[in-house]
Amino acid sequence: MAKDGMNVNKDENIRSFLMIGQSNMAGRGEFRDVDPIENPDCFMLRMGRWQQMYEPINPDRDIFKIKYHSGISLAASFADELSKLAGDRIGLIPCADGGTSIDQWMPGEVLFDHAVMMTRLAMRSSTFSGFLWHQGEADSYEGRLEVYQEKFITMISAMRRELGAEDLPVIIGELSEDIERLEKPNIIKMNENFHAIAEVLPHCAVVSSKGLLLKPDRLHFNAVSLREFGRRYFEAYCKITEQK
Amino acid sequence: MAKDGMNVNKDENIRSFLMIGQSNMAGRGEFRDVDPIENPDCFMLRMGRWQQMYEPINPDRDIFKIKYHSGISLAASFADELSKLAGDRIGLIPCADGGTSIDQWMPGEVLFDHAVMMTRLAMRSSTFSGFLWHQGEADSYEGRLEVYQEKFITMISAMRRELGAEDLPVIIGELSEDIERLEKPNIIKMNENFHAIAEVLPHCAVVSSKGLLLKPDRLHFNAVSLREFGRRYFEAYCKITEQK
Repeated sequence: MAKDGMNVNKDENIRSFLMIGQSNMAGRGEFRDVDPIENPDCFMLRMGRWQQMYEPINPDRDIFKIKYHSGISLAASFADELSKLAGDRIGLIPCADGGTSIDQWMPGEVLFDHAVMMTRLAMRSSTFSGFLWHQGEADSYEGRLEVYQEKFITMISAMRRELGAEDLPVIIGELSEDIERLEKPNIIKMNENFHAIAEVLPHCAVVSSKGLLLKPDRLHFNAVSLREFGRRYFEAYCKITEQK
Repeated sequence: MAKDGMNVNKDENIRSFLMIGQSNMAGRGEFRDVDPIENPDCFMLRMGRWQQMYEPINPDRDIFKIKYHSGISLAASFADELSKLAGDRIGLIPCADGGTSIDQWMPGEVLFDHAVMMTRLAMRSSTFSGFLWHQGEADSYEGRLEVYQEKFITMISAMRRELGAEDLPVIIGELSEDIERLEKPNIIKMNENFHAIAEVLPHCAVVSSKGLLLKPDRLHFNAVSLREFGRRYFEAYCKITEQK
């Protein structure tokens, strides 16, 4: 009765990934710019249960709004590629939230606790397999840039500990260098932050944003580039786990 | 930077309500059938934080699917009416999930734990004020009908206890008597269940579905009727809390 969604069984094996960060992880791509990804092996968490993946995966904002709506995200092509390569079912745990700074992701903050709670729920019916992070626009300012590495490592280490996920990959995407509202030297410094983090944090990789394009808002990656970004996250994940 | 959503401050006073149950609480109304409700005093929980209310409030299913998509729900007009009457800010905690049976809502189940977790997060920045329930289609069968009252009372009592919300209102909506896939006597028995529950459960009210219309799917209330249903939930809430 009222069977209006497909749920997978607890026993079926899903490898799950946590989506965390700000709007460019949540995804603001236009639906009309790309074909939908329809892969029966890709799922996303809704109310703690797995549903067939559709976009927007991460509904942090209005979908019908013209500006800054929830839309296409990089996670869809990441999941699609990984499921095809590995023949596994992939589950996405959407916890990204637009406009948020690293301070809002620190242990004890709502976003940190929400992400940990949702991942724990997901772990009842999946094998938790890694972290997908894209954030930094909100911290690309003098005074914030200098403390970002330390804050990020504190945050992600605490999250790994909370989830018993000390050895699981953390994949970080670079910011676009073309964001209009930020000073370019600051964007470059933030991207250097990410690479410096990956040098000291075990099982961490940084994904290049080279050649990826923004929407006319000059702030968010466009849908076509998000598909490509997801494939690069997938490549980075494979490299770090030596799956390819 | 990347400020793509309005968040209210922790100190601002929001009265929050938990949306639980199956598809007719989640909401499957067509967007084109009603005007959007734009009330700056109405909010909904996203990633543990308050965002301006928009629909779909409860994104348990695909929004672009033609059949059984997340859509208009009764909670929007409930929140709108209550904020206008009380002059308060109202927050909705969307935890309903289509097609679910009462067994899936029992303590220890994913949906129960998810609802408790999300409400606890909401309570960091709001005053939790009550439960909005609509469910029963999945249990309107012989064998299930007879045990529904006991199961519901066990479930809601446990949830109240977990949240320290023993005295907070529980508002239950009747099923439509026109659902095609169910035997009418069974629907009537389920509605009798609700009224019997309200007789023994403190601070519980049942909302009539009389005159409300279904969509052509003969399963889900249409958007216009959901607006009316929400106003009836509001009336019931006012009566039980003697606000009017």
